[in-house]
This record gives sequence, C-alpha cells and structure tokens, in this order.
Amino acid sequence: MKLLLISNSTNPGEEYLGWPRQDISNFLKDTGVKRILFIPYAGVTVTYNDYEAKVNAVFQQFGYEIYSIHHEQDPIRAVVEAEAIAVGGGNTFHLVREMQRTGIMQAIRGRVLAGIPYMGWSAGSNVACPTLRTTNDMPIVEPDSFNCMGLIPFQINPHYLDAHPAGHGGETREQRIEEFIAANPGVYVAGLREATSLQYDNGNLKLIGRHPMRIFRYGTTPREIQPGSEVGFLMLD
Amino acid sequence: MKLLLISNSTNPGEEYLGWPRQDISNFLKDTGVKRILFIPYAGVTVTYNDYEAKVNAVFQQFGYEIYSIHHEQDPIRAVVEAEAIAVGGGNTFHLVREMQRTGIMQAIRGRVLAGIPYMGWSAGSNVACPTLRTTNDMPIVEPDSFNCMGLIPFQINPHYLDAHPAGHGGETREQRIEEFIAANPGVYVAGLREATSLQYDNGNLKLIGRHPMRIFRYGTTPREIQPGSEVGFLMLD
Repeated sequence: MKLLLISNSTNPGEEYLGWPRQDISNFLKDTGVKRILFIPYAGVTVTYNDYEAKVNAVFQQFGYEIYSIHHEQDPIRAVVEAEAIAVGGGNTFHLVREMQRTGIMQAIRGRVLAGIPYMGWSAGSNVACPTLRTTNDMPIVEPDSFNCMGLIPFQINPHYLDAHPAGHGGETREQRIEEFIAANPGVYVAGLREATSLQYDNGNLKLIGRHPMRIFRYGTTPREIQPGSEVGFLMLD
Repeated sequence: MKLLLISNSTNPGEEYLGWPRQDISNFLKDTGVKRILFIPYAGVTVTYNDYEAKVNAVFQQFGYEIYSIHHEQDPIRAVVEAEAIAVGGGNTFHLVREMQRTGIMQAIRGRVLAGIPYMGWSAGSNVACPTLRTTNDMPIVEPDSFNCMGLIPFQINPHYLDAHPAGHGGETREQRIEEFIAANPGVYVAGLREATSLQYDNGNLKLIGRHPMRIFRYGTTPREIQPGSEVGFLMLD
C-alpha cells in the first residue's frame, strides 16, 4: 500500500498545492504512473471542471495528467482502471456522501489495498481513515454513514491548529479531539498541522513536512512527534 | 411556542452562563415555572452529575431548580411532565444521538409545540433547528440521522465568528456557511455571534444581546441584523 495523506493544500500566502509539490513528486517517482484519476466531490462552491483544471495545472508541472471522475459514465470502472488516485479537499461530508452514492468508496479501497498510489489532502486524508469522525468540516449534507475507507486504522485531524480565535467561546481543537477520544477510547488521533503529511510506503509510515504532529489517545498525555519520524505504531490496530 | 436560543454559555473572562442570565430570568418571568428539566447529553468530557450541578448553581440564583433527565427511569415521561426544558451545550452529535436513542427528540418537540418554555445554548440551539447541519462540532459519534426538532424552519450557526486563526489554511466560518447554503438552497442560516440569542415569544422572533447577527441565504448577499430587531421573516418557511 502506498499513501500520501496531506494535511492541507494551501499555506497562507503560498500557491495552491505549493508546499507539498516536492513531496507529491517524490511519492510518484518510479511508480510508472502517468495519469491520475481525480475525485473532486469535496468541492461545493467550485465546479468540478474548475477544480479539475486547478489541480491539473499543478500536476502538469511535474509531468502528470489529472482527469476527473465526474466525466466518467461508469465511475467504478474508472477506479478499477486507474493507475493512481488523488482526492482533493473541501467538505468531507459532501465527499463521503458522493463516494458512497457512486460506490467508489469501496472500489477505491480495493484498488489502494491492491497497491495503486493514493494521495489525498484535507478531506481526502479524512476518507482514508476508518470514519469521518475527526473532520473539522460542517455537516452540510448527510452521508449514508460516517464510515470511510479505513486504509489506516487511526484517525487524522487535518489542519490541526493550536491557536484559538480571540473572543471565541467555543471549544479549542484540542478540546474537540479530547471529546472524540473520550467517546472513542482506543483510537489514535493524529493532529496533522498545516504543511505536514503522513507517507506510507514499503510498510513504513513517516511524518514529513515542516512541523511536529500531535498524537492523542484516551488515557494518555498528548505527545509531539517530529517530522522525519517513523510512526509505524499508528498502524498497529 | 416560547423559545430562548442562546449562542453560547460563556464569554471569555466571564462566569458560566453569565451574560445570558438576565435574559433567561426575563424569559421565565410570569410563566409559573419552578422546576426545569435539564438535558445534559451534549456533555462528553464532563459527567452528567457535574454538568447538572453547574447549571443548577446558576438557575438557583434566580429561584429555579434544575433536575437532569439522566436520573430519570422513564425519560419520555419526564419530558411529558416537565414545566420547562433547558438543553445545554457541548457536542451536538453526542446530544442528537442521545436524544434520538432515548426518544426525547420527538417528545420534547411535542411539548414545546404545546407551549412549555424551551431554552438551549450552543448545541441546545442547534437541536431546535430542522437539522444539525450548521453545527461547528466535530462528528465524534454517529447519530441515527441529522434530523432535529425543527421548532424553527431555519438553521442557527452558534458561536458565529468573523476571525480566522492566524496561519490556518482551512475554511473561514463564512466559507463553511456558504458551502451549506450552496448544498441547501432555500434555507436561511442565522450566524449568532457570542453573547446573542434569538427569543421567540407571542409569535414574535427577536434578536437580543450584544452584537448583530449575520444572515445567509443562497443567491443573496449576507446581511447584518441589529440586536433588538424583529426577525419574523425567518419563521416563514
């Protein structure tokens, strides 16, 4: 299995998919992949055509072609025939609903377990988890279920942030994740800060990027993991 | 129908249920209510006993007794016999799951439509809406459905905030609500800032509190409504 699970597409003041560009290029090197099937269903206020064009403009720069599943008559067949898959960010609930409705949730799972490269950012990282339960997104639509692909046995919280907006009386991100682990003891949560990714390759899971990640599990003190670390313990269910 | 839908319990640096205390007192005045059934199910990292005690300490100060539904053998009967109901904040998904599981979602709806006073803050305001789709909370558990009581025909976004944490690449609150209205055209969303409430009484809906609220609807420019304004248009489906 070969995964690149990216916290976020864009850092403030930088280009779209700017910071992870080199990581994506490294990830795809020597795979023989030329064309990548793109899943745009997290997009809500952008058209799928525009979303596809935006992502393609980035991937073209290092020699890959993006083609979006929304053009396909038979989306499951498109998944079965794909050389690699990329799932873009946006609203996780919208993404999960459409992946379930079209049947590609299970189809992609099967292909990735069979070895084709999978990349996802933000919502696209959430759907690689057992469920969507650690998304930050608003539940704007109701999916059939919260179950996702379970390519990894732990939960990612993308865009993990330490800051709390001034004057805000709601929960901090850490408090939200503490609620999650209280309601779901036994499950690890990886708080992936902006400009960090988890890469799984050759049986190794590694944190890459610019910042440490924060690991939560019920009954333990949260701990920080430095970029470059192997974190295979997260893959042990 | 008599509703007090409060954005948030606590402003930074102020006491628990400090800012809305006078509004709660005004709301209950002349109702004849003495005892208020409390729904603590949004609490996840607090015990229901502790949550009850914390809320009771506030309500006692102006002469009301809080008793929590988690002590009741027959929760639906407790709802049927209640003089008034207060639903506390916390995690909306946990609250909705427990309200559905115990059957009190429908029971409370019936009692409130029959006229008993209903107060809710944060998650407790969300469940008065048609669905939970405009909560800010993490979906830490999966309810049977996103459907809520529909005491009002529009959606509240509690803790509405304009600020965006520094260095955060995720969506702003306004972007999240824009995604909601794109996916749910025709539904109004009321962005209730901290220290504001919506009060429905004698057939009138009014914004009370310290700040304007921001109203969203697909295809229109968001607009600001000043505290003290009647906003009956939101009740027209």
